[in-house]
Formats: sequence, C-alpha cells, structure tokens
Amino acid sequence: MLARSTIRALRTRGSASPRPLPQASRAFSSLDLIPDEPVRPSVVTDKVPGPKGVAASAEIDAIQDARTHVVVPNYELSKGNYLVDADGNVLLDVFAQISSIALGYNVPALLEMARSDEFVKAAMNRPALGSFPPIQWASWLKTGLLTVAPKGLDQLVTTLCGSSANETAFKCSFMAYRQRERGSPEVAFTKEEMDSCMLNHSPGSPQLSVLSFKSGFHGRLFGSLSATRSKAIHKIDIPAFDWPCAPFPELRYPLSEYVAENEAEEKRCLEEYEQILTESKTTRPVAAVIIEPILSEGGDKHASNSFFRSLRLIAKKHGAFFIVDEVQTGVGATGTFWAHEKWGLQEGEEPDFVTFSKKMQAAGVFHKKETRPNAPYRNYNTWMGDPIRILQAREMLKLIKENDLVSHTAQTGALLTSSFESLFTSSGAAGKVSNFRGQGEGTYLAWDMASPQMRDHFLGKMRLNGVQIGGCGEQAVRLRPMLTFGEKHAEVLVGTVEKVLTEL
Amino acid sequence: MLARSTIRALRTRGSASPRPLPQASRAFSSLDLIPDEPVRPSVVTDKVPGPKGVAASAEIDAIQDARTHVVVPNYELSKGNYLVDADGNVLLDVFAQISSIALGYNVPALLEMARSDEFVKAAMNRPALGSFPPIQWASWLKTGLLTVAPKGLDQLVTTLCGSSANETAFKCSFMAYRQRERGSPEVAFTKEEMDSCMLNHSPGSPQLSVLSFKSGFHGRLFGSLSATRSKAIHKIDIPAFDWPCAPFPELRYPLSEYVAENEAEEKRCLEEYEQILTESKTTRPVAAVIIEPILSEGGDKHASNSFFRSLRLIAKKHGAFFIVDEVQTGVGATGTFWAHEKWGLQEGEEPDFVTFSKKMQAAGVFHKKETRPNAPYRNYNTWMGDPIRILQAREMLKLIKENDLVSHTAQTGALLTSSFESLFTSSGAAGKVSNFRGQGEGTYLAWDMASPQMRDHFLGKMRLNGVQIGGCGEQAVRLRPMLTFGEKHAEVLVGTVEKVLTEL
Repeated sequence: MLARSTIRALRTRGSASPRPLPQASRAFSSLDLIPDEPVRPSVVTDKVPGPKGVAASAEIDAIQDARTHVVVPNYELSKGNYLVDADGNVLLDVFAQISSIALGYNVPALLEMARSDEFVKAAMNRPALGSFPPIQWASWLKTGLLTVAPKGLDQLVTTLCGSSANETAFKCSFMAYRQRERGSPEVAFTKEEMDSCMLNHSPGSPQLSVLSFKSGFHGRLFGSLSATRSKAIHKIDIPAFDWPCAPFPELRYPLSEYVAENEAEEKRCLEEYEQILTESKTTRPVAAVIIEPILSEGGDKHASNSFFRSLRLIAKKHGAFFIVDEVQTGVGATGTFWAHEKWGLQEGEEPDFVTFSKKMQAAGVFHKKETRPNAPYRNYNTWMGDPIRILQAREMLKLIKENDLVSHTAQTGALLTSSFESLFTSSGAAGKVSNFRGQGEGTYLAWDMASPQMRDHFLGKMRLNGVQIGGCGEQAVRLRPMLTFGEKHAEVLVGTVEKVLTEL
Repeated sequence: MLARSTIRALRTRGSASPRPLPQASRAFSSLDLIPDEPVRPSVVTDKVPGPKGVAASAEIDAIQDARTHVVVPNYELSKGNYLVDADGNVLLDVFAQISSIALGYNVPALLEMARSDEFVKAAMNRPALGSFPPIQWASWLKTGLLTVAPKGLDQLVTTLCGSSANETAFKCSFMAYRQRERGSPEVAFTKEEMDSCMLNHSPGSPQLSVLSFKSGFHGRLFGSLSATRSKAIHKIDIPAFDWPCAPFPELRYPLSEYVAENEAEEKRCLEEYEQILTESKTTRPVAAVIIEPILSEGGDKHASNSFFRSLRLIAKKHGAFFIVDEVQTGVGATGTFWAHEKWGLQEGEEPDFVTFSKKMQAAGVFHKKETRPNAPYRNYNTWMGDPIRILQAREMLKLIKENDLVSHTAQTGALLTSSFESLFTSSGAAGKVSNFRGQGEGTYLAWDMASPQMRDHFLGKMRLNGVQIGGCGEQAVRLRPMLTFGEKHAEVLVGTVEKVLTEL
C-alpha cells in the first residue's frame, strides 16, 4: 500500500489539468464527525469474505437468495468510511451501500439523534402521512429537505424509495399532461374515461409514454423498470410498457482529445431524441422524459452540460415534462448538491421534477405546483414516506452544511482526479485502464477495465487489499465514496488501485 | 355515549348467533401493554379538526397536497387506542392509520426497543440488504417474521411497502412462468429475448398478465395499480397494462337469509373467472392471480371460504401462480394471524405467495423456493427492505404472542358482532344501515350506509363524538381497530355509533 509520501509523489508528477492541486484537508477533517475512525484497512483472512462471512451468507441463503452477497458486515463495529465484516476485516468502503451512505457508519451525531425522544416516537408511531400528518410535519420539512429544494421546485411528495419517487413523477406527469389536453383542471372526467380506466383501457388508461435513455437506470418496479435500460438481466421476462428509448452519447476519452467527435455524437443523439418525441405524437405521445445526470448503473456515462440543457429545452418544446433522476447523484457527491446544478439552466428552464433517495435516506420528488393533481387522492398511498428518514435527512443536511462537505467533496474529487490521471497514464495501467471519466463531478469518478472478467477480478483483489469498491455497466469501476471521504482515504484508495493494477 | 351497563344490555338482548357471549377481558388487558391509556374520548373543539389542526394543514398545504388530511395528530401525546390531535381532542382510533398500527400509540415496550443500541445502530447504518446484509440478519428474520410464515412458504423477500411486495410477487411469477415454459432453470435466455427486452418488446418483455378482481386493491405503483380495481380516481390518466379483471361476488346480507342466491353468485363468478383464465391463453396468458381475503379499499367485500379455495384450485389447474394479498388483512385482526388460514387449504394447496405490510410495519413476500429466480440480480434493488422495521415487527410479534392478541381479537370481534347485530336491527338504524358483514373475521367488520353522503356525514359526526373511524368503497364504514382494542373500547365505539345513528 502506498504511503502518504507516495501519493504526494504521484501528485507532484503533475497531471493534464492545469488547475492547482487542491488542499482538501484544510476544509474539513473527518475527525470532527467520526472521532475514532480506523486509519487504514486491515484484512485478516485469506479470502474476503472469510469463513464467518461465508457461513453467515449460507444461513441467510436458506431464506433469501444470497448469490448477490459481497460481504456480511458487522455494522456495530464499522466506523466512518470503514466497513468491518463478519471476519473482522476492516475495509475502506468507497461503494457506500450502493452510494447510499452520506456521512459514514456510526456517526456519533446521528446516533445521538436516533436516540432522541423525537426520533424514537416518530419511529414507533408511523403515520399515514397523507391523512394524519404529525403536528411537526411542516416544520420537519422546512428545516430539512426544503432547505435543499432545487431552484424553482417548492413542492415535495415524499416516498419510501427511489423507484417510487420516479413512478410518482411519472404519475404526476401523466395527470398533468391529460389535464393540459382537457384544457383546465376544472374539466370533469368523462363517464367513458371513468369506466374504461377500470378495465385498463383507453381513454381512461391513456396510451402515453415516458421516454428514457439507453443505459439509463430508474428503478425496478413495473413503471420505473419500463424506463430502465441498463441490463437485460434487470428486465427479462417482465412485461413492460411500450415506451421509447433514445440514444445516449458514447463519448470518447480523454475529452480534450475528442472534442469534435464528441460534439458530433451529442448532436446525433439530440436529433434522434427529437425525432422520437415528434414521431411518438401519433402513436404513444411522450408525457415525460427522464434522465440521470450521470448514467450510473448503466456504466457511469457522462455527457456535456450543454447536452443536458438541450434535452431539457427540446422536451419543453414538445410538451413533455422533464424529470431529473438524482437518486444516485443527489446530496453533494458530485461536488454540487444536485448534479444538475452544473447544467446552467436559466430561470424558467428548471426541471419539472427532481427525484431523490439513497444518500438522502428519505426519498421523494421535488416539483412545481402546476403538477399537483387537480383532485385529492389521485396521488396518495398509506405511508407516503417515513418521518424518521425525514428526521435523519434533516440532521445529515445540517452536518453537511456545517462541515461544508459539498465543497470538501469537490476538492477531494479534484485531488483524486489528478492522482488517478497520473496513475492511469503510468506504465502499470497500460492496456488495463481506459476511459477515465467524471472529472469535475466530485468523487463520482469511473474508468473501464480491459474486459468484464478483468473488472471483476480487479474488484475482488481490491477487496482482498482492503478496499470495498463497486462496478457498473459491462466493465466499469465506479467510485461512490461518502462525503466524509478525504485526503487520507484518497491515499489509501489510490495506493491500493496502483498495487492491484500492477498485480493484475 | 353509552355506559358499560348499556352495552351489557345490548349484549343480553341476544343475537342471531347461537355462540355464547365472549369474555374478551379475561384473555387480555390492554393495561399491561399500555398502562396509562385514556378511558374515554374527549372532544374540546366545536369541529374536528379544530383551529389548530386547520392551521397545521394549511401550513403543510404550501408544500404538499393537504386535501386528504383528516386530523393532524400530536403523536407524542397519543396513547394506545387513543389518538390526540393538534387541538387536544382525544379520539378513540378504530382506523389505526389505515389499518397500519398493530398495538397502539407509544406502547412502552416498543419505545424501549427503539431506544436500544441494536435499533439505533440499525437505523443509522442502513444496508443494501441484498449485497451487504448485517451479521444478525438471519437471526432477526428467524426470531421475527419467519415465526409467522404462512404454512408451506419458507422463503421471504423483504420490501419497503405493500405495493412493492405485490410487484415483487408479480415479478417472481412472471420469471417462474417463463422458466416453466423454457423447461428448466438451466435454459439460457436467447439473444432475441435479451435484445428485445431492452426495447420493452416481446419475447424478452412477454405479453403475460396478472388477473385481479373487481373492487380489489393492490397498490398504486404501475404494476400494482394495473391490478387495482377499486375506484376510478385511483386509476384515471395512468397508463395500465391490459390485464384481465374477474368479477367478485356481490353477496347479499344477512348471509343466512340468502344462502342459495349467494351460492349461485359465487358459482357465476367462478365460471367467469375460469373462462378468463382459459381465453387469455391465446392472447395474454395469466401468470398470476392476486386476491385479498377481504376486498378492503374496494368496500369490505367478503366471499365464502369455499369460494377462495376454488379460486386457488382453478388457478393451479390453469398454471397461474396464486398470490394472497394480506397487506391489510394480515397480522391477526381477522381473528387468525393470516386471514387465508380460514379457507381450509390442504397441504399442496397453499398460496404461492403471501404479501404483507401495514400492521407488520415491515413489508414483503413469503413464497416457495421454486419461485426464487434462476439467476442473481433478477429480483434485486438497493435496500430490499429496512432492518429497523424487521426489528419492530419482531418485537410486535413477540408481544402479540405473549398477550394472545389474535384470539383476543377474535373474541372482541364476536363481542362487537353481537352488539352491532342488536343495534343494527333496532329502530334507530332502520333505513340507515345495511349489509352488516365480517362476522367471523375478528374486528374487521363493516356495513353500508344508505348513501355516500350519509356515510361521509356519519364519519364526520363520529369524529365529533370522539371516534376516528374509516370508510371504504362507495358508502361503507369499515372497522380497523388495533389488536389491543377490547371490551372497554367496544363499549365506547358501539355507544357512539348508536348515538350518531339516532342523530343522523
């Protein structure tokens, strides 16, 4: 494993970027939030998972499919950025429960919040929020989630997960689209609409669609899965709506070497996208377009800010609502609180919906008042979210702001970028690593390995060297560290990647 | 409000049932679980909600649709079966957050559990359960949810809500159905299947269906909503799968007076159901049938045990998986832990899937190993449930067993039944109440009012008299009390119903 001096050496080797090396550690020390975090990984078994982890998985497998297990953690012993597994291995975790841990394991301030009377009573008296919201509900939202509401979106529907958040946005889009066709919120439903919807037939169940993009991932329930275009194993054998799929640019890296090619590729995709929007009007009109700022599960695919801005403007031109799925990219890890802040959307160009979940722990949809349904009970369910996750999000957001963790993560991302750019242009990476990407997107960096097999081999060897790291797409490696991930963790990570690359 | 002596008088008036009057209070006293529960309702404002409740809703309405609010509770002051609202009104709650509170508000044993280190750390270290389950996971399931696994179903997929539980059962059904068509779990997917599913086209996205029943409710996400057939307002403007809907018997009450008519009605429905299963084979074959033991949201519709058993056997005959949706009926309130236990299914006739949520707080699907997908990641998502709800369910199940609350609820249901039968045949109910139903289903009793307007008026006046009670269907009133609801609460409830009926 590389020592601090080695990563310094890597950094002084210089990188393609002209910007000065960041000094992340000045802005924030994870010591404040996580006082007794391990200083380095420690692997005590020959394989990870070791015998205890294997036994724990086998016990679970009698009840639930365990083939997807990576390790079986001891969460009580885990701390900050370090995950402890059943065998006592201490792993630097840069995958963070599929990008769902914002601050770290067992953060004392969060444990204290969870022990409070407010949290305990909220946990054991779970309301049907749409009909019996607690007296503190407005205050909890205003002092928590609403403090990070995307510009222009002051309405919030809370849900329990990202898939439900996206499907809520779909439903709101369909209702608002039909309302626009009817001409006014006051126009009553016809008897034919009321009767036909009970049979799942048009006009009550309309032939409308959601447009999504190749390699996009939006969830695995029936509506969200119809918009998901990540991998066949996610979709096969499941009935799906006949909704359209537009191409997403396949950019070439490094970006600075392929400026003209990438511009042409984005132009091609935009043209095909607009063509689908136009042609679908006579078959299954597109009520909403959904896009991730970084196509994550599908392989960490990026596009330019101007590409995303064009998507938004073209959707508007064709009367389709625009949903930004920030389930994975939200909450600061890309160096801005919402990844779509970087797109440079002007006033009046804001998305219609921004969905979130994962690192927020709470889930939901920010939207505009114009997409609130015209009648009650149209967008309703029993729980409509979970108050304790709202309280947890509020506390985390407070800690994120107090510790300036979004700009800390932007700085850490810049540090990682320059370190990896040096490493990946070194001889040890030749023929193994390509398409390093995510520059300017905080710590959400990724690269491709030479083959799917090499990628899987790499992930396993990283784990054996004390780093829990994730893959995506066919052969990509993606970083999804927590917001408290800083320079000292970066040293461990970069050093371990270098070691493993040379061993592959 | 009626005094204890009055309900005794009601009881001694006798009922149509020959069974001896139950003695619910001997089996269980809610004093043990809820030591300082109010003894009666108390309404201190002229209207419910009062001014503070109205103001709280208005504040929320700036952020979220508040048109569906009933009251805004102060959960910290609520206790047991009594809900305290923002204005200090103390309401006997027989709706229980849409049937989702099992034991009561602020049950000391549950609050204590929520303060434990185990719970607090599980709450703040939320895992991606499918890949990183905690070392205690098998033990938490075995000592909790699995102790109430329906007979024959030893597999469990955990989810976050009832809609997701049903959609998980749908997905498992579709995958298992296609696997059966392929002939073996070892048969690989074809390239055509892999490619076409990415476009949402057949054969990869197959033209298969889920059959549900008129007035059934199974959730409001896109797959579950396609199976939901409750009310147009739940479905209108939302694209739906072209799945079939079978009739559900419209029984006449009292059952003892319409034996032949009801048998004929059930026979008619079974024939039409089987016809749909047969005919769909050439269009959109039915991979799964889904049914609630009591069609709740759709109006508390019941059918005979033999009807349900026939549904199951006919599904089997036609190769469709059989899903029992116990999201609302599970967890003891019908007098058996699972409502479908009453159907008399023999070994080998068990449902393929039983889904749950609501009162269990945890959600999920019990199933058989044969419907575990043949490859990993086919039924997978980030969270796959929430460990703290698993811990809460475990503690509640322990308390339910220790206090024998399922048979307590069966007894309370019998007490309520005889009291209401007397009341509803009295002059005060004439022309106002009909179709009293749910006898033998614990406390899940219901009746119709003379019109939707009278029903809504009744619910409002009940609230003003201190009882929070719910409606369903077009003009039904449904009881959904907690499992700690007993004789003393029944006295308040029956007395208030009598008072309000005479005032209508």
